[in-house]
Amino acid sequence: MNFASDNWAGVSPKLAAALTEAAAGLAPAYGGDDLTARATTALRDLFETDLEVFFVATGTAANALSLAATSCPGGIGFCHADAHIANDEGGAPAFLGRGLTLITMPGANGKITPDALSASLSHYPQDPGQRGTPRVVSLSQVTEAGTVYTPEEIAEIGYVAHGRRMAVHMDGARFANAVAHLDVRPAKITWEAGVDILSLGLTKTGAWCCEAIVVFDEAKAAHVAAHRKQAGHLFSKSRFVAAQMLAMLDDGHWLELAGAANAAAARLAAGIEASQNARLAWPCQSNEVFAHMQTETLKRLQEAGATLYPWTARGTTVDEVPKEGETRVRMIANFATTDADVDAFLSALG
Amino acid sequence: MNFASDNWAGVSPKLAAALTEAAAGLAPAYGGDDLTARATTALRDLFETDLEVFFVATGTAANALSLAATSCPGGIGFCHADAHIANDEGGAPAFLGRGLTLITMPGANGKITPDALSASLSHYPQDPGQRGTPRVVSLSQVTEAGTVYTPEEIAEIGYVAHGRRMAVHMDGARFANAVAHLDVRPAKITWEAGVDILSLGLTKTGAWCCEAIVVFDEAKAAHVAAHRKQAGHLFSKSRFVAAQMLAMLDDGHWLELAGAANAAAARLAAGIEASQNARLAWPCQSNEVFAHMQTETLKRLQEAGATLYPWTARGTTVDEVPKEGETRVRMIANFATTDADVDAFLSALG
Amino acid sequence: MNFASDNWAGVSPKLAAALTEAAAGLAPAYGGDDLTARATTALRDLFETDLEVFFVATGTAANALSLAATSCPGGIGFCHADAHIANDEGGAPAFLGRGLTLITMPGANGKITPDALSASLSHYPQDPGQRGTPRVVSLSQVTEAGTVYTPEEIAEIGYVAHGRRMAVHMDGARFANAVAHLDVRPAKITWEAGVDILSLGLTKTGAWCCEAIVVFDEAKAAHVAAHRKQAGHLFSKSRFVAAQMLAMLDDGHWLELAGAANAAAARLAAGIEASQNARLAWPCQSNEVFAHMQTETLKRLQEAGATLYPWTARGTTVDEVPKEGETRVRMIANFATTDADVDAFLSALG
Amino acid sequence: MNFASDNWAGVSPKLAAALTEAAAGLAPAYGGDDLTARATTALRDLFETDLEVFFVATGTAANALSLAATSCPGGIGFCHADAHIANDEGGAPAFLGRGLTLITMPGANGKITPDALSASLSHYPQDPGQRGTPRVVSLSQVTEAGTVYTPEEIAEIGYVAHGRRMAVHMDGARFANAVAHLDVRPAKITWEAGVDILSLGLTKTGAWCCEAIVVFDEAKAAHVAAHRKQAGHLFSKSRFVAAQMLAMLDDGHWLELAGAANAAAARLAAGIEASQNARLAWPCQSNEVFAHMQTETLKRLQEAGATLYPWTARGTTVDEVPKEGETRVRMIANFATTDADVDAFLSALG
Repeated sequence: MNFASDNWAGVSPKLAAALTEAAAGLAPAYGGDDLTARATTALRDLFETDLEVFFVATGTAANALSLAATSCPGGIGFCHADAHIANDEGGAPAFLGRGLTLITMPGANGKITPDALSASLSHYPQDPGQRGTPRVVSLSQVTEAGTVYTPEEIAEIGYVAHGRRMAVHMDGARFANAVAHLDVRPAKITWEAGVDILSLGLTKTGAWCCEAIVVFDEAKAAHVAAHRKQAGHLFSKSRFVAAQMLAMLDDGHWLELAGAANAAAARLAAGIEASQNARLAWPCQSNEVFAHMQTETLKRLQEAGATLYPWTARGTTVDEVPKEGETRVRMIANFATTDADVDAFLSALG
Repeated sequence: MNFASDNWAGVSPKLAAALTEAAAGLAPAYGGDDLTARATTALRDLFETDLEVFFVATGTAANALSLAATSCPGGIGFCHADAHIANDEGGAPAFLGRGLTLITMPGANGKITPDALSASLSHYPQDPGQRGTPRVVSLSQVTEAGTVYTPEEIAEIGYVAHGRRMAVHMDGARFANAVAHLDVRPAKITWEAGVDILSLGLTKTGAWCCEAIVVFDEAKAAHVAAHRKQAGHLFSKSRFVAAQMLAMLDDGHWLELAGAANAAAARLAAGIEASQNARLAWPCQSNEVFAHMQTETLKRLQEAGATLYPWTARGTTVDEVPKEGETRVRMIANFATTDADVDAFLSALG
Repeated sequence: MNFASDNWAGVSPKLAAALTEAAAGLAPAYGGDDLTARATTALRDLFETDLEVFFVATGTAANALSLAATSCPGGIGFCHADAHIANDEGGAPAFLGRGLTLITMPGANGKITPDALSASLSHYPQDPGQRGTPRVVSLSQVTEAGTVYTPEEIAEIGYVAHGRRMAVHMDGARFANAVAHLDVRPAKITWEAGVDILSLGLTKTGAWCCEAIVVFDEAKAAHVAAHRKQAGHLFSKSRFVAAQMLAMLDDGHWLELAGAANAAAARLAAGIEASQNARLAWPCQSNEVFAHMQTETLKRLQEAGATLYPWTARGTTVDEVPKEGETRVRMIANFATTDADVDAFLSALG
Repeated sequence: MNFASDNWAGVSPKLAAALTEAAAGLAPAYGGDDLTARATTALRDLFETDLEVFFVATGTAANALSLAATSCPGGIGFCHADAHIANDEGGAPAFLGRGLTLITMPGANGKITPDALSASLSHYPQDPGQRGTPRVVSLSQVTEAGTVYTPEEIAEIGYVAHGRRMAVHMDGARFANAVAHLDVRPAKITWEAGVDILSLGLTKTGAWCCEAIVVFDEAKAAHVAAHRKQAGHLFSKSRFVAAQMLAMLDDGHWLELAGAANAAAARLAAGIEASQNARLAWPCQSNEVFAHMQTETLKRLQEAGATLYPWTARGTTVDEVPKEGETRVRMIANFATTDADVDAFLSALG
């Protein structure tokens, strides 16, 4: 009954085996090795386009360095008020982004809309003046509400952003879960929809450490290699990430893992919908489930051995706020979550 | 005959096994797991003192974040002119160090001396004024010349530094090789000799990714956790580093690996000393060998299949400079270097 | 009929004379001169307390360096959504603040409230974790809505902030106007109410360049001198700022100038209240007047030769938003604004 | 007998009068005013080329923001080991330069040479790799040894720099003294000799605060306006700097002031050359005089009321070092230094 986070999970056995296999022999350092080259090719195949790949240590680094690459002195980024970059990265976007300012906006279902973005941009005339220069909009796919942008929603935001010569960044810490949910070609929710740079995170999917910055449009994201080096994120033994990436992409393993996590979450969400003791806060579209429940219910579940946490949010609309006496909780399934785990929880929930 | 770098090596089988073993099960993220706690305990035992441990992605990050933690606005660090931090980290000390300025000094055998440090400090009166505030001296152990500071040499530098209320940082990217060479308790060349903060790197020793900032004196190195987070270096699945660290420290495995690399280098150095076609640039005290040879000899070796590189240096003394027609080369052995590798090279050298 | 901004004004003749008088003779550079010492004494007398003074070039620098001095890696600042620091300083708080993150909140009359601050802080548990560390709240006095915090309002916010060990910063770009409006001892709305560090701006009051960081509590605002130097804000001929400051404080000249500007604004506001063609957006409590008017009225005024600008705002409450067809405009009086200026405008307004 | 520094001087009466004249009336803020436009035109006329002008608060800011504008992540700058940017700016180049690394080189007469620059660049292969990217070389004109680069010397360094696609920056804190000494068209020692960006400082020449970044080649120095704003260096009442600049350039006033200072220094240098009690350390080519004297002589002079300071240097050649028992001292004349001042000093020297 542990739904704390998907980064509490270990790694898929297939990845452990891949790392063992890659352990022997010499290979050029700093990404000059064959496995890194093969991982790049695999990603080009997956996304059906030319692209550049830069491994980094964490999702926070992938996000902040992506934003840095799109920015300039006085650059401004836009995102949802509950975005991970604005709340949970300890200031990395401002620091690694060399003074990047983030402007946030609320929005239903954890999403920003083209209209909300346009309204935010109306504060910024074309001539930058004192206010700084809009440079990037960042979308979380999966969002912080566990929901998933449709290709059309992304494309509309991309249209607004590109109209202001801004870049579009996607925080794909749970990109696999979004692809599995939508059942689309990855291209369709990235560069085909206007995404210029992607934080592709497979750590939560089931790797030890497999985070990459994927650049679709180099004209919009410059100096990534140098940003990465200066932030201390250029791995010497790059192939240990590449081996994980290759194992993930081999034969659709990443979607297999994400699909399993999504299915566990769907089972959990269905059970909650059927329960009198909780109600879904947002539709379940990934491996995350958010629910409102009486604070006493939460206590009871925790005493029964469930691991789950209250979830505060800033960017919610009025009807998304917990009612008096309720707490909003987050539950996250991972690739190894079993039906038994879910059913035990639902049984405790009642 | 590949002596390119120890970061071209893979990982020791013991570490691959440890990672596989750690792969299953859930554990708290961000370092709250048992393996991370056990690794911290193991390091406290190893260094025979209380200390704090912070895993990061790379040696560059360990160094730059260590320097950041010792610095302040206008802070100045001191190091050898050939130090990795001053030459090979793409500006990370200045960037992650939030404007840290490095002042370099030349010195024989890749080492700085107490006198050179004092001379450098004479430019900085006690009242900081316009020139900034001396905050940290950084020693590389092993040095960039492949040599090793004795405990006494470290202590003398520490004495000067502490007299100016500066911190002492040690870049221990090849710390294992130094300990293996000196055959000392690790405490003796770190905190007992005045080292306040250590970049402990075991990646080159034979891990995939095992870099830690070890803080001996928190009064001299503040906010390390926050510096790390803001730089995107807080691993979510911290236990994958911890598992490597534990396997390394178990039963002295790290020194076994470093000892093997040192022995291979010693064999190489002995062969070079016996050869007419090359001469040692610096005494071999670790797994690195530096030699002067005719540029034609280098070409001949490379054509014979040897991988080794020319090595430029800024901080050398007059008698350390290659003679007319000579090139200085660097050769590095790793834990998996065989006698056959070395002997093939020496045979080609003639 | 020019109400563009008080920084369009020149300088009071008394200040021009003071600068001419200070022009001759040698004096130690970098603030070691007598005039700088006398200005510090004058400020200590004015604020009736010990304090430190640091001249800088601009209000933006004063704000950003003040925030920097209160922060730490991963530090978070809180302010109103329309605060100058969050909107009009080109990212200086994030950049000079070395990665400081600003969290904004809406609020009526351009003010934040203790409750809004507490609600924002509820996202930040005592243990900083991933979200960063709350370090400072910043109040604008005069606010961006032209209103003025009462001593009690400041003290209540200070109480919340200090309870979380945060510093309280005041952006006093129009501090003189606030003091003139409230008719209080400056101490009463600064350190006596919990303000730890003040950006004291007298440029808008009627100086060429007279901006100072005033530190009341050094325990809350460290390394200001070093932050200033590293940002290039330590004037060599500090006495040219000191001469302006002394002329300002001499015989209450600063309040005389601010009072004149406030009176002109009050005359303007009274005329608008009496007009059918516009309505006040916020009560006039300083030298700023905000009004809602039909967009056509604005055009008509501009065609008649009036200089005033539309004013967007993010942090307004629902009933502060312009109605359909209306535009919110800002008008600012300065020390030299004449009754004739105001009356001509009101006549054009009708 | 005060030779402490030219920034101890006040301002020329002509500038005080210009400021008084500019004091009245309204004008657009942030550089949109007529005086700023006129100052830009005056500088275009002076340098006989198109150029952009950005006023900032200090020479440190002009230098650091110039370097920032030429750099990129991982960027490296090159300069003399005694350059002001490397020693006396409290880390501003690294901080405002967003992690810029400075590599220094020694050199006779305070100058770098094309050969020394080439040698330094040999450590940086064309492919940046780990070492960062050479981006800018900075020359001080006047140098920190009080000497002046000839147009040919500058052009040769520019040739090397441009061959590596680097920018050339000139620290012109005493640019007026160099022009007065060389008696050349300013163009000849700037853009015609390959200088891309100039820190033009007239504060030491005799202004209160008159520092400008002059950009000759925008392709080499990007985002200066945004860098300036984000560092808090965009003056609201820009015209107070413009008024000083215009008064300086009017009728060659700047060269008149610099010429007077140079003449006083020349008189001082001649007297020292004639004395048994001191010897010149470097040829006097500006308003600075450096001399070696017995430490006792220095004490005697100070007791006699002379203000002058010992001068340490890192980047000297072997024969420039003081002899046993000697101290190197720096003496600086300013626009108001009188013959009587100099003669009193020489009389005390004996």
